[in-house]
Amino acid sequence: MRDVAIIGVGMIPFGRRDQDSLVDMLAYASLKALDDAQLGDKAVDAVYVANMGGGILQHQTAIASALVDRLSLLPAAADTVENGPASGASAVKNGVLAVASGYYDVVLVAGGEKMREVSGWRATDFVATLTHPEVEYPYGITLPGMAGMFTRLYMEKYGLTREMLTAVAIKNQTVGTLNPYAHVTMAITKEGILESPHSVVNNPIIADPLHLYDACPISDGAAAVLLCPLEMAKKLTKHTPVVIAGFGQATDTHTLQEREDPTDLKAVTLAAQQAFTMAGIGPEDIDVAELHDAFTILEVAESEHVGFFKKGEGGKAALAGRTKLGGEIPINVSGGLKARGHPVGATGVAQVVDITWQLRHELPEGRQVLGATYGLTVNFGGFGNNVLSLILKRSA
Amino acid sequence: MRDVAIIGVGMIPFGRRDQDSLVDMLAYASLKALDDAQLGDKAVDAVYVANMGGGILQHQTAIASALVDRLSLLPAAADTVENGPASGASAVKNGVLAVASGYYDVVLVAGGEKMREVSGWRATDFVATLTHPEVEYPYGITLPGMAGMFTRLYMEKYGLTREMLTAVAIKNQTVGTLNPYAHVTMAITKEGILESPHSVVNNPIIADPLHLYDACPISDGAAAVLLCPLEMAKKLTKHTPVVIAGFGQATDTHTLQEREDPTDLKAVTLAAQQAFTMAGIGPEDIDVAELHDAFTILEVAESEHVGFFKKGEGGKAALAGRTKLGGEIPINVSGGLKARGHPVGATGVAQVVDITWQLRHELPEGRQVLGATYGLTVNFGGFGNNVLSLILKRSA
Repeated sequence: MRDVAIIGVGMIPFGRRDQDSLVDMLAYASLKALDDAQLGDKAVDAVYVANMGGGILQHQTAIASALVDRLSLLPAAADTVENGPASGASAVKNGVLAVASGYYDVVLVAGGEKMREVSGWRATDFVATLTHPEVEYPYGITLPGMAGMFTRLYMEKYGLTREMLTAVAIKNQTVGTLNPYAHVTMAITKEGILESPHSVVNNPIIADPLHLYDACPISDGAAAVLLCPLEMAKKLTKHTPVVIAGFGQATDTHTLQEREDPTDLKAVTLAAQQAFTMAGIGPEDIDVAELHDAFTILEVAESEHVGFFKKGEGGKAALAGRTKLGGEIPINVSGGLKARGHPVGATGVAQVVDITWQLRHELPEGRQVLGATYGLTVNFGGFGNNVLSLILKRSA
Repeated sequence: MRDVAIIGVGMIPFGRRDQDSLVDMLAYASLKALDDAQLGDKAVDAVYVANMGGGILQHQTAIASALVDRLSLLPAAADTVENGPASGASAVKNGVLAVASGYYDVVLVAGGEKMREVSGWRATDFVATLTHPEVEYPYGITLPGMAGMFTRLYMEKYGLTREMLTAVAIKNQTVGTLNPYAHVTMAITKEGILESPHSVVNNPIIADPLHLYDACPISDGAAAVLLCPLEMAKKLTKHTPVVIAGFGQATDTHTLQEREDPTDLKAVTLAAQQAFTMAGIGPEDIDVAELHDAFTILEVAESEHVGFFKKGEGGKAALAGRTKLGGEIPINVSGGLKARGHPVGATGVAQVVDITWQLRHELPEGRQVLGATYGLTVNFGGFGNNVLSLILKRSA
């Protein structure tokens, strides 16, 4: 396998983007990545688009064919990759394999989703199409519902508290105020969402025991990365190349109910282990992480399953500030899905973009993890039934 | 790049399969491929699913996650690849790159579509979601409509006749009667669909100048192939391994109207050229081909664009029997999309399955191209805006 590097990244501000079509958003993010890379006369050989909902939300398919023409990259190969909310990391993985194989040199990976086109319940229903069509979906279960039940089990098993989850929400929304790409840029306080009598109104239950501020918003958005062989990157780029040092992907039972211990996210553990093995490092070597905090509970659970903390210790660590910027392992210094937003096809790509900025040391004070060398992402598909983890490294 | 071989193939009969869900069909085809391969204790490392319409037709996403669990292949990686009607070949290509890279050893590629779940016009509308959402779809253009206009241009430019197109339909439906996996197993005659006074009723116009028997049916179906490194295949398989000798993929303008010469299918030419270059052979070396005859005109046009015949000569060649079994280049000895059917996500994979059977010399008399060594496929996405061509070789 050839070593693969990231030579360009781009993102557009997430949020409500009524004026843009899905392909518009993908094109804007892609153009930023192409500008960032300064490819010169090198052609893009292939394009991977990460998108989950074009067919359902926009009644549009073959998005990759539309994008490659919009970007005037013809006759580059173009495919769409879908893996639920982990579509972004799956597209990055397949882009990496395509370059690693030696068949393609320059590959663009763009992830995007336009979820605000439909009303709130329809967006929730859209995401629920990843549940089991016979034993889950017809009974009305949604992803917030699953996360709520998962949280209850975690609380009972590990003594996780609402205060710990609230610490995650506050951390991510606080740093999100510094991220110009974030959908939610409003700082929140413990007083406002947990302690004050008004918190019942400010922060209502959405899926007991999860409250409104435990959940990410429903967002439009797109992000893109440009990949090439490391040797080519060293010659081409003005930036310090960032290398894909490791990656892993693992699946688990389609339904949550079939898992022996539903609090054990085996696919997260396995995906991260594969990534660590490939990179030849361990959790203690990671300087910064983007975890898939579609719900606060997921940041906590993932921080344990990838090996940053022991099982049951993630919530306490968040409460103690150990996952803040300046703490021992800064998590979601972008604001995460909680603040940046979660346009599902975009998320896994956006995580890679944010980690690339961290490893290039390009972020402003208050967001930059000083001297970061290794970054890790977790992109969580289904309710943990298809998970990817990537490890990026600042090349020497 | 490592050489990649096909060690198992499977298909289920295409047609109307009301009793099966989309995942059922994918699972049945996959189990056949796994049985065919006799993997022993080797695990499947990754699964690629080709599917275009799960979201629109079944209101289901993350099909790959569902399949990998249904097949008890956890924790194998699993992604869905979508590229309109060329989703099948795109999934095969990405499976090949994954093995070629050295990252995965054993990869299952399964393609499927369940299109009969909706009524006829909804199936046509579903496929039309690949057209341009601003300048095509709102004006009511469909794929049959595009094929009709394309045919008219071809007739005017090259003197193509209905008799030539009818020859393709008769050829494919005749050989389709021998294919147990074919949706349409009814032989047709020139008398019945072209010459008799009743042909106006038997074979009505669907998109002038195309008639009913110029079009493929709307089908349910699935097919699967199992890939591994050639070196591993030689040790594992009881079959003569079939090697992916070459492949190519090229895109063209999203809309047909933007092409300088709309009769010039540049993406077909380019994809085939890439495949020929990689395989180190030319069109004259191909023994059997599966072309994407969603409409008879496409078999004719593709037979020219890949280089079997000069431009304008494909129709005459079909009429003269040069593309029949026993002719100089047998095309669609499976019956093609015309007779086998065209469950869009399945088609590109089914083509690879049929060519594999040809190269293993496993087909019965009337279908087997004697001594076939090289086979070629064309999987045609959009209206020629995203095309893949694969060249398979019987290993010595």
